[in-house]
Formats: sequence, structure tokens, C-alpha cells
Amino acid sequence: MTAAPAVAAAPVGRAAPGRREDLARLSLNTATTKALTLEAAAAAAAAAGLSSIGVWRDRVQEVGAPTAARIVADHGLRVSSLCRGGFLTTRDDRAAREALDDNRRAIEEAATVGTGELIMVVGGLPAASTPGGPARPYPAGAGTDPDRDLVGARARVAERIGELAPFAAGHGVRLVLEPLHPMFAADRAVVSTLGQALDLAEPFPADVVGVVVDTYHVWWDPDLRRQVARAGAAGRIASYQVCDFVLPLAADPLLSRGHVGDGYVDFATITSWVAAAGYAGDVEVEIFHQEVWDAPAERTLATLAERYVRHVLPHL
Amino acid sequence: MTAAPAVAAAPVGRAAPGRREDLARLSLNTATTKALTLEAAAAAAAAAGLSSIGVWRDRVQEVGAPTAARIVADHGLRVSSLCRGGFLTTRDDRAAREALDDNRRAIEEAATVGTGELIMVVGGLPAASTPGGPARPYPAGAGTDPDRDLVGARARVAERIGELAPFAAGHGVRLVLEPLHPMFAADRAVVSTLGQALDLAEPFPADVVGVVVDTYHVWWDPDLRRQVARAGAAGRIASYQVCDFVLPLAADPLLSRGHVGDGYVDFATITSWVAAAGYAGDVEVEIFHQEVWDAPAERTLATLAERYVRHVLPHL
Repeated sequence: MTAAPAVAAAPVGRAAPGRREDLARLSLNTATTKALTLEAAAAAAAAAGLSSIGVWRDRVQEVGAPTAARIVADHGLRVSSLCRGGFLTTRDDRAAREALDDNRRAIEEAATVGTGELIMVVGGLPAASTPGGPARPYPAGAGTDPDRDLVGARARVAERIGELAPFAAGHGVRLVLEPLHPMFAADRAVVSTLGQALDLAEPFPADVVGVVVDTYHVWWDPDLRRQVARAGAAGRIASYQVCDFVLPLAADPLLSRGHVGDGYVDFATITSWVAAAGYAGDVEVEIFHQEVWDAPAERTLATLAERYVRHVLPHL
Repeated sequence: MTAAPAVAAAPVGRAAPGRREDLARLSLNTATTKALTLEAAAAAAAAAGLSSIGVWRDRVQEVGAPTAARIVADHGLRVSSLCRGGFLTTRDDRAAREALDDNRRAIEEAATVGTGELIMVVGGLPAASTPGGPARPYPAGAGTDPDRDLVGARARVAERIGELAPFAAGHGVRLVLEPLHPMFAADRAVVSTLGQALDLAEPFPADVVGVVVDTYHVWWDPDLRRQVARAGAAGRIASYQVCDFVLPLAADPLLSRGHVGDGYVDFATITSWVAAAGYAGDVEVEIFHQEVWDAPAERTLATLAERYVRHVLPHL
């Protein structure tokens, strides 16, 4: 009997979730278990047989980065990434200095907590005072409103990544640019495609600026196969994050990130592209969804493992 | 005194809306005045000083295409486009034949009503039974679900555009591919970027397959400047549609298309790109927004003209 092709159905035995060797690359992002402290999330991940965890800064800061590192290690886990730095688009000099300072603290936290990957959500247009909220009124003239100047905002991101890069390199931490779905281009991230993230990364060494492939944000991209291959060839894929694009969109569309298999994403195809690009790192599950947040953590972890084994693992 | 640069503030005199020469390129898309019959919409557009109208098939079919042509002409207007053909992604042979037949009827209607531009919204994934609705459950296996196979759906669009092209050419009607915002990739249109639409158009003559630049759908695209230039150089820009990207997103995000100036789009910059690409045709205002639909038509037309003159016209 020959080996099954990469995109065939998984053998039945393999589809049973929870076998430790199957979950060796599966990571729980702490946003998925929003209500849990880092201690509780780490315990849940370890109990479910995972070997790593992606941590958000709020849960790290609650206990302090050195303690966070110890908590994770005590549960026998690795840290796959720290979420998140970024928010670099302001036009105000003082706000820009504060943002850079905060990113330097995030870099230090990443190093202390034991991960080399700092996820960066770069920020939206200055015209967006509140994420998801209405735009500031247009100014009276007919020219380009500097607060809606997308080209300008993107240029500031490039500049400020350049300012942070030496500090990140000095700490052994990679700045991992996250392209967000274009529906967040106004208010959360002016980096909207993997290709654009790679263009921004190009001036820097691959171990200083990388990219994350998050299925929710990039699944629709007609250029995705080529850009995933490009990212892999450049050694810049720092993280593969999986969750599904669920409709109808939640009132806050950020909360339409559902369990793998509940939405429209073709995980078989995208995962096979990521694998073909040579990515051999962790696969983080980062779900923002009210029902998932309301569910007991054990159930969330069990679903997450089962879906990963069924829809992602056979193609890795 | 030298001429004002393209992206400077408009001279005050020019900002007064309603001067007929200012509105020579402004077109009312009938979806903006959703409650009005074609007769009423044409009357409102003519009264506001516009010279063209973009018509939806439902309003044309209510009276029949020959009568629709007469109504528009009686009001001294041109037809800038017919909305819409498309929905070509089905995997079912019979449904595909029905879709092609319906598109042939749309081509005939466009010719009869007097426009050479048929806007095409190509359709979403077969897994989406209802626009905006939940996905059909994943099948049991771990392979690619053919109903979520985005690459396959895009290939079917290419094929079926090829089947329609000779019929369209024979009627002097151009198939105008509309890239929709990626948030509609699952349920409405697997064509998500202007570059992708141009790739699909490339095998065909420029007067047989074109593209529309709709600010709501493409404003976020980091490659937009280059693709607009490419579209212009190829002679494929069939329509420039303007409306704003408004947050918070409506429950149906299709209804977050607001008046120019109410959202996040940088109309000065995008309009200057479209102008630099050589586009000299109509500028259609197509707004889907409950408040706009609830407003009296005269007020909608007045706002539309005022915003056009302030934010778009100075850059055309």
C-alpha cells in the first residue's frame, strides 16, 4: 500500500483527537479562552495534550513576564508567540513616541516570556478614533484628508518598523507583521495582504521581521498561494494561525472568528500551501467568538483539538 | 497665478452643487433610490441636473427594457450601466445553464436599454446557500470540500465568462467584472481584487470584458494604484462607482455603503488615480444604506451632488 496523498481523507485512527503526538504542533492562543488567567489557560492546554501556548500581553502583564515564563514552563509548555505589538500609524509625534516605547516593552516581554515571535497589528487610519466606530468628519477642503491618507499611514508603518527593528534584533525577537482582513483596514490594520506584509519585511533580515499567516485574514486572497510560497522561501513565516471565517458577521466582525470547520475557509488547500512553503512551526488557534468564550474551557479545547486533527493536521 | 494642483482644495465657487456642467459625469445608480420606480428615479436624477443613470434589472424588468429605454431618454438621460449579471460559481450543471441563460437575457436587456456596460457580480462559494448566512456543514472527510474550493470556484468563473463573451460581443455589450470587498468572498463574489478581475479579463478584447472600480470594494487594496493604471492602460475601466466605507458595519455589511465623505475612503487620491489612468466616463453613485433609502429622494440627490462636487469632481 502506498502512502496517502497530502490532501486525502485522514485515516480513521488518526482522526481521534487528543493523541499527544498529533497535537505536538497545536498551540492554544490565550484569546480563545478569554476568561481564563494565564495559569488556567496553561493548565487547560496542558491537560488537553498541547505543547505550546500563544500568549496575550494582558494575561502576561497580570502576573509579570518572569512569572508568566515560569507558569508556562511549569505546565511543560512552550510559548509560540506574544500578541501583540503594533499600532504605529498615528500622525502625532508624542503618540508615536509612546507607541514605540510600548513596542519596546512588548519586545522585552516577548524575550522574557520565552518567545522569539512578537505579533504586530499595525493600526488603522488616524481618522478612526475608535475601532469599529464612525470616522471623524471630513475636513472642509477637497484635498486628501491626512487622517484618511492610507498611503501615508502605510509609509509611517514602514518607517516605525525600521525604528524598532534594531531593538528587536538586539533582544532576539522577531517583529511578526500580521496582515488583517481588509474589513479592518480603516480601524485596525493598514496592512491588508500577505504580499504587502512581505514587501514591508523585505528590507530586514528574515529573523528580524516576519509575517503571520492567519486563515481568517487571508483566506480570500487570490494571490495567497504565491505569497505563502514567497514567505516560506524567504524564511519569514513566523506563525500559522487557524480559525474559520463565519457568517453572518458578528456586530463586531472581529468576533466572527469561529472554530475550524464552522465557516468557509478551505483549510486543506491553505494548510498544504503552508506546508509546501516549508513551515514546520506551531499552529495557533486564535478564536474570537462569544459562544466559544461562553463555553467551558475543556469543551473548547476538545473541539479545537478535534477540528485540528480532522481539518489541518492531515495537510501539514 | 498658476493652475491649482490636482489634489488642492476646490475653488469655493466650484463647490456649490447643482451647476449642470459640474454634474455632466455624475450618474445616479437606481439602487441609491431603492424605493423609486425607474420613472421616478429618472425624474429625480434629471431634476437634480444629472445626465445619466445606472439601472438595476429589477426596475427595468418592471416596465420591460424597451419602455425603460424610452423613460430614460424622455428625461434626457443616458444609461451608464446595467446592474447586474453574474452568479456563475455553481457546481451544478443545470444551475450553470440557467445562470448562463439569465446572463444572456441580461446582455439583451443592456443592449435594449441602451448601455454597453453590464456589471457582473460573479457569485460566492457553493457552500454559501444564502448570502450572509451560515456555511453548509463540512463534509465528513478531511480533504478539500468542493463547495469551499475557492480556487475551483474562480476557475469556473473564468470558464463561464469565456462562454458568455461571444454573445456579449455580438450585442455590443461589455461584461464588466466587479471585484467585491473580500468580506463578500464567501457569499457574493469570489473576485476580490482589481488585479484578479484584470487577470480574468486579459484573454478577451477590452471592449468585451472590462472592470469596474468601486471605491467601497477596492479602497483598501495596497496594489490599487498600480492596478488602476493597468486597467486604464488596457482600456478596461468601464465604470467608476463611488460611495464610502462606513463603520460600524451594518448587520448586512452590504448596507454599509454610505454617502461620499461619511466614511474612511480617500476619494481625492483614488479619484486622481482613476483620472490619471485616462478614465473619462460616468461616475456612478451607488449607495446601499438604510438611512439613505429612508430619506426623501430630493434630499438624497442633493447630498449626492454636493458630495460629488466637493470630494470627487476636483480630482477627476
